[in-house]
Amino acid sequence: MAPHKAPDASRRSDRSRRAIYDAALALVGESGYRRTTIEGIAARAGVGKQTIYRWWPSKAAVLMEAFLDLAARAAEEAAPQTGDTGGQAGGTDPQAGAAEYGIPDTGDLAADLKLVLRATVDELNDPLMEAPTRALTAEGIVDAKLGAEFVEKLLDPQLALYVTRLRAAQEAGQLRPDADPRTALELLIAPLTHRWLLRTLPLTHAYADTIVDYALGGLASRS
Amino acid sequence: MAPHKAPDASRRSDRSRRAIYDAALALVGESGYRRTTIEGIAARAGVGKQTIYRWWPSKAAVLMEAFLDLAARAAEEAAPQTGDTGGQAGGTDPQAGAAEYGIPDTGDLAADLKLVLRATVDELNDPLMEAPTRALTAEGIVDAKLGAEFVEKLLDPQLALYVTRLRAAQEAGQLRPDADPRTALELLIAPLTHRWLLRTLPLTHAYADTIVDYALGGLASRS
Repeated sequence: MAPHKAPDASRRSDRSRRAIYDAALALVGESGYRRTTIEGIAARAGVGKQTIYRWWPSKAAVLMEAFLDLAARAAEEAAPQTGDTGGQAGGTDPQAGAAEYGIPDTGDLAADLKLVLRATVDELNDPLMEAPTRALTAEGIVDAKLGAEFVEKLLDPQLALYVTRLRAAQEAGQLRPDADPRTALELLIAPLTHRWLLRTLPLTHAYADTIVDYALGGLASRS
Repeated sequence: MAPHKAPDASRRSDRSRRAIYDAALALVGESGYRRTTIEGIAARAGVGKQTIYRWWPSKAAVLMEAFLDLAARAAEEAAPQTGDTGGQAGGTDPQAGAAEYGIPDTGDLAADLKLVLRATVDELNDPLMEAPTRALTAEGIVDAKLGAEFVEKLLDPQLALYVTRLRAAQEAGQLRPDADPRTALELLIAPLTHRWLLRTLPLTHAYADTIVDYALGGLASRS
């Protein structure tokens, strides 16, 4: 989906693309998914609508990329300072987004999960992310086709990072051998999503830590 | 029994109320929350709109009660056959809804939680519930005021049942003493909500059982 442009046009293209992303995210956050149009995005971004139609096949495609780019930017800001290992973040390709960052493996599963879940808390609480993420999630909930597209392109790549980290923990003997990593990760991320989407209670770092402790240690008494 | 009402009027009122509920749920499922109007509900239910305005202060109030009534009916259908104890379900007050059913306490925490989470899976997979639940959840995600109202009136009473059951388990020495029941319940219910709302993977009884096993036993290796 990345536009293939002549090099001399690439700087102008980058500027236009960023303007289009920002316009798309602002509009969907303000007016919701359905009332956001290609024409509206073009007007707000100060480009002709043919520019948008040339690069993206649909409104959903613009928003998907805008959102991936936003997530990549938010992840970059929320990412803990990891010194030398920061180089692995990559991130020149907005399509890869946060998925390229991976989950650290220091050998301490609980610490690594707390780090990444705290960063997720920060992303979800970022006012820049709030309105567009809510608008797109809400639309995906009622529109199965759009929802499936967002799960496939945006959510699943993130979940795959948890599968990788949990599988490594399993190989290191830290995760119970009969646990399915793909199911296990839902105990970690679903509570954060639930609390954020439904606004039941505050979403904090302390909450992220508690979820990791409960999920790894279990709720049952050990007596 | 409603001894202080004229029998004819009360029977007619019940019929009208049910027709209004059904119309409200059908419309919100078909057209979404925003495009559902009091006028539309009245027309579909075959009542005058003044009838609705006389009983409910707002569209949100009609839908809230319609939804509580639907949840109560779904819970009644999904409820396991408990013989004599079925009488405790009550249910003449639609406002009380499913919350009156409670979570059984057989002394076996895992079995009790699996029972109630399997029933939740059945409710969520009920085609009758699907469209209106999605429409209202989606609207609550983008409309903080409506979302807060649904959490307070619909979700929190259900969560309170888990707090009660988990606290009993804690007193019986089955739940770790340092666990906060209000937080702990999110490990149990959030994965189901997440899977259903985002349609990541099938929502089945086996999944509910696995979530209970993982949450109670913990993901960490016991070695």
